[in-house]
Amino acid sequence: MKNLNLVPFVSVEQMMNIVLEIGVENLLIELAGYIEADFRRWEVFDKSPRMAAHSKEGVIELMPTSDGVSYGFKYVNGHPSNTKSGLQTVTAFGVLADVATGYPVLLSEMTILTALRTAATSAMAAKYLAPKGSRTMAMIGNGAQGEFQALAFKAICGISHLRLYDIDHAATEKCQQNLAGFGFEIEHCSSAQEAVEGADIITTVTADKQYATILTDNMVGAGVHINAIGGDCPGKTELHRDILLRTDIFVEFPPQTRVEGEIQQLAADHPVTELWQVITGQATGRSGPRQITLFDSVGFAIEDFSALRYIRDQLKPGNHTELDMLADPDTPRDLFGMLLRARPDG
Amino acid sequence: MKNLNLVPFVSVEQMMNIVLEIGVENLLIELAGYIEADFRRWEVFDKSPRMAAHSKEGVIELMPTSDGVSYGFKYVNGHPSNTKSGLQTVTAFGVLADVATGYPVLLSEMTILTALRTAATSAMAAKYLAPKGSRTMAMIGNGAQGEFQALAFKAICGISHLRLYDIDHAATEKCQQNLAGFGFEIEHCSSAQEAVEGADIITTVTADKQYATILTDNMVGAGVHINAIGGDCPGKTELHRDILLRTDIFVEFPPQTRVEGEIQQLAADHPVTELWQVITGQATGRSGPRQITLFDSVGFAIEDFSALRYIRDQLKPGNHTELDMLADPDTPRDLFGMLLRARPDG
Repeated sequence: MKNLNLVPFVSVEQMMNIVLEIGVENLLIELAGYIEADFRRWEVFDKSPRMAAHSKEGVIELMPTSDGVSYGFKYVNGHPSNTKSGLQTVTAFGVLADVATGYPVLLSEMTILTALRTAATSAMAAKYLAPKGSRTMAMIGNGAQGEFQALAFKAICGISHLRLYDIDHAATEKCQQNLAGFGFEIEHCSSAQEAVEGADIITTVTADKQYATILTDNMVGAGVHINAIGGDCPGKTELHRDILLRTDIFVEFPPQTRVEGEIQQLAADHPVTELWQVITGQATGRSGPRQITLFDSVGFAIEDFSALRYIRDQLKPGNHTELDMLADPDTPRDLFGMLLRARPDG
Repeated sequence: MKNLNLVPFVSVEQMMNIVLEIGVENLLIELAGYIEADFRRWEVFDKSPRMAAHSKEGVIELMPTSDGVSYGFKYVNGHPSNTKSGLQTVTAFGVLADVATGYPVLLSEMTILTALRTAATSAMAAKYLAPKGSRTMAMIGNGAQGEFQALAFKAICGISHLRLYDIDHAATEKCQQNLAGFGFEIEHCSSAQEAVEGADIITTVTADKQYATILTDNMVGAGVHINAIGGDCPGKTELHRDILLRTDIFVEFPPQTRVEGEIQQLAADHPVTELWQVITGQATGRSGPRQITLFDSVGFAIEDFSALRYIRDQLKPGNHTELDMLADPDTPRDLFGMLLRARPDG
């Protein structure tokens, strides 16, 4: 019988090994499948905006959800100034638990896993929203999330041409080098304006915690799909408001996106479509070749839940460790007795 | 330089060793000091009612708080039916993090730690609310929390006589045996009515998830202090409503207690006093010898924060392990490069 008080733990190194064994692109496809399956049963989930603790340096968030059988939450921070001291802007870990007993069944690093699920969600949304036959993606912002986005769009949407731009030239170099050998044609562009030329899909994924204007209205032509990743907390947006007024906007969970997404720039009743309804066929996605679609992505707890569920299904001997994290007295009501018996003379 | 991506982890076994090395009573005194210090600076904390996911079997909760320098949260479940299958009703773990970077600095088991902080908080409250010179405590409910309550009241309030009652005779036996050698005089009573006779303090700490009446109005005499621990979620109370109307009620965080505590039986504007204001001298605690005081305890995030802070200050080489929980790329924006370089041929 399984020892329920031991919780499987996937460390950063173990996560990397799992990803490399499955293969990044293959994993992104499988993970997108888990996310899509959970979006299809969106209505069974407990949903609430994440619980955020803001400070002048950044934000720490807890993102819980449950489908009634499993419960998951993610701890995630966002601290743009961290990079100055060699730390990650975003780090995360998460837990999956059994609703019937309340016992955790998985603790996992989620810095890498969040990068994977964010990219898988973007590409899954684009499958429904981007123009058919999209081959070229502009990517503005080439930081930690860049390569994951590129590979997800390749594996899931067939993107083969990348047009990269970052205000930091070195970030684009890094992204281009890391993606060598994955079969992309890559253009290193010298401005956002240049990057979007001829693109079917425009991905914005910058990290400054401020109102920014990565895209201005004149840069966005008819028919494109915009995948807006970087605008994901109050006061942090990437698109000029005028663009939003020309697009059909698709979101994860409106109460959260209205506070955190690009649409924080719009009236609280501006029409948006919930992505899950497009996936289930209850709402229309792309309706014509000149339509501009926008996935205003902020990241929602259900995507992390799907990711934890996916990793749990990959557990096998040797690819994780077990943590003595839950007390396990001989009899449940004898917690103190367990402590007494741990004495050297107990 | 400390490797920030490694997170100190205190397992159940390591927590037991820390408790035994410090000594349970000594630890309860020190921990109550940390909790009292945080109650004194109550106003600096971010406070919100916990985030609860209820199911028919129980509840899973996240309890975050922050003092602007550190951020802490606890994951805790409450599943009364767990004991039938040999599992704990309550298990918990928690994390302390640095607000400036968002990086976790401690992951700890909190099943044992919650038992300790609950008992320390009760005794800390009683120091301000119980009759001076209290020596005798009735304890109704002798389950997992029982011994911790008894020892906290001994160490912090000078309780030397215990009058125990539990509907399960074996629970009282277990409690009595575990407390042998700690210097109590213990009476094993055959009813709640008998247990409360002559008691200065009445502690109710039962576990059923239902409206119960552990104490009826006639059982509570003038001058006692009631420490009500078990009524701690919606639909779960221990005291008859009439008792509440005769007592001066002290609570941790009113918005949470009004939903979860004994006072869920009362009108939403029934007067209560916040315990932190008694500690800072802004409100009156015990005002006379015939007054009945009630600490309607439900457990609040700040107490867990204090407990995590206490354990963090006990860390030293050998009493914890370190978890590879946070990704640490050579350069912060090169998460994908870290993954590539983990390849056998990377």
